[in-house]
Amino acid sequence: MVQVRVEVRLKKGVTDPEGDNVQKALTLLGFKGLRAVHSSKLFLIDLATKDPKAAQKQAEEMCRRLLANPVIHDYSIRVEK
Amino acid sequence: MVQVRVEVRLKKGVTDPEGDNVQKALTLLGFKGLRAVHSSKLFLIDLATKDPKAAQKQAEEMCRRLLANPVIHDYSIRVEK
Repeated sequence: MVQVRVEVRLKKGVTDPEGDNVQKALTLLGFKGLRAVHSSKLFLIDLATKDPKAAQKQAEEMCRRLLANPVIHDYSIRVEK
Repeated sequence: MVQVRVEVRLKKGVTDPEGDNVQKALTLLGFKGLRAVHSSKLFLIDLATKDPKAAQKQAEEMCRRLLANPVIHDYSIRVEK
């Protein structure tokens, strides 16, 4: 079994309301020196295959077909174990 | 400036409806060999400080006070750059 880490983040220039609000909330709580906060999603996917290359390929297809929206998202895939 | 990666994930045993639904959707799309899907949140926080230890400490306080709910979440912090 391999575990695949898929990170789906907003492209540069796309508004990130969650990140902006977290930054505002942290500032209101008194945290200093915050330059920026970006939020993103992480999916940990356990696959039955033992072949890291097959897992990578499968994860890329998952991103294209479901996990990421190519208009606003970038993604990165890391196969672990 | 340092960038801090804060990963906030659900504790083991806590229901993860998003992960479950992603798994169902991927199965419906025809993907085989899916054992499990876990979803989690990632925050990338840019801090003005140059001291990695101070950044780590600040990020831990952010998790305690805002980013994570200790009842259902675990978190991990990695200081980069």
